[in-house]
Order: sequence, then C-alpha cells, then structure tokens
Amino acid sequence: MKGTIAGMNRHLLGLKEIDANDILSILDRAAYWEQASRRSDVLEGKFVANLFFEKSTRTRFSFEIAERRLGAVPLAFSAEISSVGKGESVYDTLKTFEALGVDAAVVRLPWSGLLADIAGRIRYPIVNAGDGVNEHPTQALLDIYTIRRHFGEVRGLTVAMIGDIRHSRVARSNLWGLTKLGAKVLFCAPPNMRAAELAEFAPYVPIEEALRADVVMALRVQFERHEGRLVQSPEEYRSAYGLTEERVSAMAPHAIVMHPGPVNRNVEIDDAVVEHPRSKIFAQMAAGVPVRMAVLERALA
Amino acid sequence: MKGTIAGMNRHLLGLKEIDANDILSILDRAAYWEQASRRSDVLEGKFVANLFFEKSTRTRFSFEIAERRLGAVPLAFSAEISSVGKGESVYDTLKTFEALGVDAAVVRLPWSGLLADIAGRIRYPIVNAGDGVNEHPTQALLDIYTIRRHFGEVRGLTVAMIGDIRHSRVARSNLWGLTKLGAKVLFCAPPNMRAAELAEFAPYVPIEEALRADVVMALRVQFERHEGRLVQSPEEYRSAYGLTEERVSAMAPHAIVMHPGPVNRNVEIDDAVVEHPRSKIFAQMAAGVPVRMAVLERALA
Amino acid sequence: MKGTIAGMNRHLLGLKEIDANDILSILDRAAYWEQASRRSDVLEGKFVANLFFEKSTRTRFSFEIAERRLGAVPLAFSAEISSVGKGESVYDTLKTFEALGVDAAVVRLPWSGLLADIAGRIRYPIVNAGDGVNEHPTQALLDIYTIRRHFGEVRGLTVAMIGDIRHSRVARSNLWGLTKLGAKVLFCAPPNMRAAELAEFAPYVPIEEALRADVVMALRVQFERHEGRLVQSPEEYRSAYGLTEERVSAMAPHAIVMHPGPVNRNVEIDDAVVEHPRSKIFAQMAAGVPVRMAVLERALA
Repeated sequence: MKGTIAGMNRHLLGLKEIDANDILSILDRAAYWEQASRRSDVLEGKFVANLFFEKSTRTRFSFEIAERRLGAVPLAFSAEISSVGKGESVYDTLKTFEALGVDAAVVRLPWSGLLADIAGRIRYPIVNAGDGVNEHPTQALLDIYTIRRHFGEVRGLTVAMIGDIRHSRVARSNLWGLTKLGAKVLFCAPPNMRAAELAEFAPYVPIEEALRADVVMALRVQFERHEGRLVQSPEEYRSAYGLTEERVSAMAPHAIVMHPGPVNRNVEIDDAVVEHPRSKIFAQMAAGVPVRMAVLERALA
Repeated sequence: MKGTIAGMNRHLLGLKEIDANDILSILDRAAYWEQASRRSDVLEGKFVANLFFEKSTRTRFSFEIAERRLGAVPLAFSAEISSVGKGESVYDTLKTFEALGVDAAVVRLPWSGLLADIAGRIRYPIVNAGDGVNEHPTQALLDIYTIRRHFGEVRGLTVAMIGDIRHSRVARSNLWGLTKLGAKVLFCAPPNMRAAELAEFAPYVPIEEALRADVVMALRVQFERHEGRLVQSPEEYRSAYGLTEERVSAMAPHAIVMHPGPVNRNVEIDDAVVEHPRSKIFAQMAAGVPVRMAVLERALA
Repeated sequence: MKGTIAGMNRHLLGLKEIDANDILSILDRAAYWEQASRRSDVLEGKFVANLFFEKSTRTRFSFEIAERRLGAVPLAFSAEISSVGKGESVYDTLKTFEALGVDAAVVRLPWSGLLADIAGRIRYPIVNAGDGVNEHPTQALLDIYTIRRHFGEVRGLTVAMIGDIRHSRVARSNLWGLTKLGAKVLFCAPPNMRAAELAEFAPYVPIEEALRADVVMALRVQFERHEGRLVQSPEEYRSAYGLTEERVSAMAPHAIVMHPGPVNRNVEIDDAVVEHPRSKIFAQMAAGVPVRMAVLERALA
C-alpha cells in the first residue's frame, strides 16, 4: 500500500498543480524514451487500468502502447461495456479496480471537477486522460514536448490557440503548462467560444495577431458540446477562424501549426494544412507514446 | 483433445452440482494464490476466451487479471461488438472459439438454462460467470471465501440474504454452496422478490430476524429485470429492507455486512454502510482474483 | 521506416492482385504453422492494430490469436468505441496508428473501394479483413487451404458457390484465388443475388448442377445488406437454395460442404448439415489461425 501523501504526489491530474521542474523532468524523460529501444521492463508485471468513460482513439491507444513498451499489463475498460450501464458510479468503478489490485489507472471522464475529489479517496496513482473541460495534461505535455523539440526551448515563445477555448481542456492544460515554462499564450475565438474565467491569464486577440505567433494551434470545434446549434455554420467558422493555406502562408517563416486532434477537416483546419510541411500534427501524435511512458513511469516506478 | 468426461468434470457451471470437498479445495487453493507473488506460469501460453453476452465490470476484469497472473492469454469478447449482432447463436460462438483452439472459456449469459446444454457439446472447459437467474458460482465462491477467511469456518454460521432473491443468481449459488458447507441460509424479501422454488431450502424471515445473522448480505435490486414497474419505489424499498446505518448497528457485534456489487447506493444499502468497518464489500472484490485463479487452475492445469 | 514499394508489396488487399505463387507460398507457410508448437517469436515486440469498423467474431479473434502466437502485441480497435464517433475518418484513424508507431494493421471496413486508396498513403503493411463487398482475402485463403488440405490439390476441382454472390466479398476473393490455382468456379443464385460484373468469370448454374461440384460452398444470406425486403422469405430461400440434408445426400461421394460463417441455420444451410461428416465448416475456422499467421508473417517478418 502506497502512503496517501506519496500516492497523491504521483497522481497527474492537471498541469495547474504541478511545477515547472516537474514538467521539465517529464519532458526530459520522454526524450529518453523516444530514443530508447522498443521494450523496457521498468513496469514489468504492473497492471494499469485504462478507464475510459468517454470515447478516445489516440489517447487510449498511445497509453496502451506506452504501457506495453514499459512491460505493464493494460486493462481496457470502456463505460459502454460495463456495469456503469447499471448505474454504478465512477467512484465505485475506481474502487473496484483498487480492490482488484491494479497498480495505477488512466481515467477519462466527460465531466469536470470530479476527478480530484475521487483521486483523494483512491490509493493508486491516477493519470488524467481528459476530464470534461477541465484538463488534459498528457495532451498538453506532448504538445509542449513537440514545441520544445522543434524550438529547443519554450521560454520566450508566443503560442496562439485558436478556436473553441471554452470547451477545450487541451487549451487549459496548455495554458498552465506553457505559462509555467515561460511562454506567452494568446487566445483567439468568437464570443461564444471564449472562456471568461481564463481572460486574466491570456488575452483574446484578432486572428491576424494570432497568426504572428511562433506556434499556431487550432482547436477542434466541439460540435457535440454546444447545446443546440452553433451560432456559426462550419463554413462561417472556417471563413473567420479556419487555418486555411492562405492563413498559413501569412505566418512567420519559422512558425509551426499544431492541432491536438481529432480534426474537423475544412472546418478549423484545411485538408491541405494537416499534412503541410509546417504541420506538427503527426509529430504531436508520435510524441504521445514517449510522453505517456514518462508519465506512467513517474506514477509507478 | 480433452476426453469428454474429463472435460465435463472441469467445467464449473454451478455450485449445485459440485460437492463440499471440491468447494473446499478451490477455497484452499485461492488462499494459496492470495499469498503468492504476483505472477505464475501454470497456465503459460493457454488461451482463455472471456465471452460476455451481458455487461460486467468486476467479474470480467477479475477473471482477466486472474488469467494474466497465471500466465494465460485472455481474449475479450463482448456480444455488443461481435457477430451475435448478425444473429449468430451463443452455441455457434462457443464452437467458433473451439475451432480457433482456445483452451477454456469464461461465459456470461443473460439467459438461464442454456449453458449446461451447450457445455455438454463443447470440448474445452467452461466457467460460468453468471447465467441469467440460475447461478454465478465464482461470485458465491468469493463470498464464501470472504466468510471463511473472516470466521475461520463456515459450518454453523447463519447467513441472511436480503432483497431480490427471485432475480439473483448470486443468492442461488450462495444457497447451494453455503448449505453444502454446513451454514444455515435465511432469505428476507418482499413478496414480489421471492423465489417460490427455493422456499424448501431456506426460510423467509422478517428483516429483524435477518439482522441477527452472522452474515447479512444485501442483494442488488435488479431494476432492469422487473418487467414494468416495481411494486416498491426505491425509497419504500430502502425503508423496508435497506441496510441503513441504524439497521447495521442493530446487528450482533461479531456480524459482517456483504454485498455482491454493483451496489445501488441508498436503495438496498446506504452510502455510509458500503465503507463501514463491518462491511466486507471490498474484501469480497479483492477475493475475486485469487478465487478465480483457483477456478481457472482447476479447469486447465 | 519501410520503403514505399516494399511496404506496398507487403499489403494484402485482395487475391485479385497477387499471383498464384504468392498464394501457394502463403498456403505452404500456413501448413507449417498448423504443425508448429503453439508459440513463436518471429514477430516479438511488433504492434499490430486490429482496426474493425464493422462487427466480427471469427476473423477478429483468429487474427488476434495468430498475432499472439507469433509474439506480436495486438491492439483492439473497434469503431464503436473510438473517435470515429466524433466523425474522424478512416484515413485519419490509420494515420493516427502510423504516428503511434504500429508495425502493421488488420482492417475491416463496411465500404468497398476505399482501402486500396488509403493503403497507398500509409507506411505500414495493411491486411484486408473484409472491405464492403470487394474482397476478404484471408477468408478465401483459409477456404482454399481447407480445400487443398482435403483434396491435396486445387487444380482441376470444381467449386460451386451458392447464394448471395452479389453481396459476398468471400465469393469474390474465392473466385480470384481459386481461378488462379486452376479450379473451375460455378455460381448459383437467384436473380436478385447475382453480381452481373462477375458473370464473365464464372457461369451461373442451376442448383442441381452446383450440387455435382467437388466443393459446395453455401454463402450467408446477408439480410442486412438487402435494402428493404428480400424478394424471398427465408423459407422460400431454403426451399430453392438451402443446403438441406436431402441436397447434401445428392452430392458426389467425395464432395465436401463449406460455409464461411456465420451461418443462418435453416436458411442457406440446415442445422444438421453444419456438423455433418461432409461439412468442413469447423475445419475452415480452425484454418483461420495458421493462415493468418502466414499472412502476418508475410506482411512483417
């Protein structure tokens, strides 16, 4: 049994509550894993429950590959095929896996503000794989890893996030992480996609200014989280905020394009931009495995 | 190819048809596995198909962990993502896995009375993970394991099961197993939750008498199996049969509370009782892994 | 990184585009794997993504077992539990797994005519596990393996396929593969189940003539692919085209019955015929594992 304090310290619930040194040590370790031969045994025989109460492809499978590469045994739980259908709560599910003896859990939830409370009552380390609109720390870590790998350093860079800030846990985690490492964050969004509570941390700027940043990150329009109809049609959104080839060619010569995926092609980012030379979208995905190896090692090793 | 007779003997379809010595040897072996280091290789390279035609979390994953800890390879089949959607029968599914060369299967079905017939026509050992309202032998084994571990012996104890006896395969398997080991079983249920065919094996008693037992086991109200509306509202059920803190404090000082899970909190058992010092609910779950290791070893080793 | 040409060559998209020698070398290697001890390490540490955008039991699990027996790590993706729900395209899913570093993918799609285009843009080898009504090459390979194992040679045999040719990717793959190996293929189907574009490759014959073939293969009536109602009721279909015991007894003494599964019992094939001494249905399933081992080895080793 892990002590409560130690257990708490090994959770990764968000980038808001960890410090710059902790972030940097994860990034350094990810760089090690990126270079390492395929298979390690640092987590040999550990059971890691991947508890997805919300759909996922890239996050889910990059965690599963990371676990395998470290020698751990993944357990694939998704809410659709479980007792959650019978009304069992998230807490009860996590307690069940505690009783079954798992060593850690990766948890994705459609709701904000639940995970921290539950984590305080669970004895194994929990890695947040996205909780509502709150945080998605491993996505931000792989974004920051990609930025750092390209520019060498994060300090002093300007990173513009364009789009559905209000519903984006990725935007929040990147905001906390990038700011701690000394980057300047800009937001760019139509009024119905702004998050008022974040205005004190990052200014909202017009699209022309966002395109002058070192990193231009488009966010997925989360159609499914907008109750009723969006104010904008996809065409109107693209016209005002989409990363078109024209807009990308207006960026600074050294600047890069990012997107956390999955993309709505030709809405927030054009087809031609996804695989554009400036695009780091596939580099971001590829970084997911070593970054998550580092996070799992931090949680368990 | 296993001989038919030997194959038959290694099925575990229910506790009704196995004898006390067989039950005790499973419990003894589970005690061994509970103490053992994490990973064995007694089933190295064996393929075990986990065929779940009905939702499950704790049963499914405790089998999967048990299989892994024994060195076996689990195959995770659930009816929602299979050819059963094309109308393929359960028998055809089990025959398919026979042709694919699996060494054993763990099977959960929403229907009673089908599994024994199928098992007679399949060449690999089958472990029943719950079939309709018939039996759930590994759940009862882990319940009995928990009771035996707490009291040292089962013989002479009184075990009261409260609630939805009619729809409970757990109640039936516990009835057969506990009775064979010399315990006395009491049932306590409203008229619409009684099983007439079991009345000759265990008397129905009022809640006050049930609370005087050594073991008080609340059963899940199976809302989904009551056609139409329950006679009782959840509030009425809780008021008449729920394990409230007040009722638990009326129990004998040495008595314990159990529940097979998943719980309907504040219906058949109060929130505060789930993690109460008298509650063995998480000990039950934890027993699931070593008990299922013993059952799989019996089937395959 | 695999070169594009080499990568292309190691795809298996259909039997139409590979030659007889390639088919024979897969069948020979499958014969080796059928005899081999259970576990090899030729694909040790390789990650194989099983990407099923359509339901499957036998294909999915025989690939998973084949991967495990070769030492590879399967990743089980099904569209129901993924970002495809968020509108992500098949191409994006395959690119995601490329970025995550998988070594190969097994792909099943409900649509025809998409896979070849995508395969040309993906850097890892792709094995087609069924794409719409186009091809299902590993099913045909295991069918041909079963025929060759029984008769010693394919050349000179007559193979009659009875039923829903129009919607059958299995019929198409078998047509290409059997023809290349020197067998004669006959089709037998009611007008609404015929594929006009295949008439030049195999004649449509009456049921009486089909029953004189060396191999009589019933195809599943794909009720779900016929828009609206079938012209025939299941009873009418059985009466005109079903493999009844009576029809099977009219076959030549040396002839065999096959069906790719899953079966509609008592529609295209009678219950009693499925496990009839002439039936190779379970032998077909059993051949699935060694044949897929050979295909995966060809793609990756």
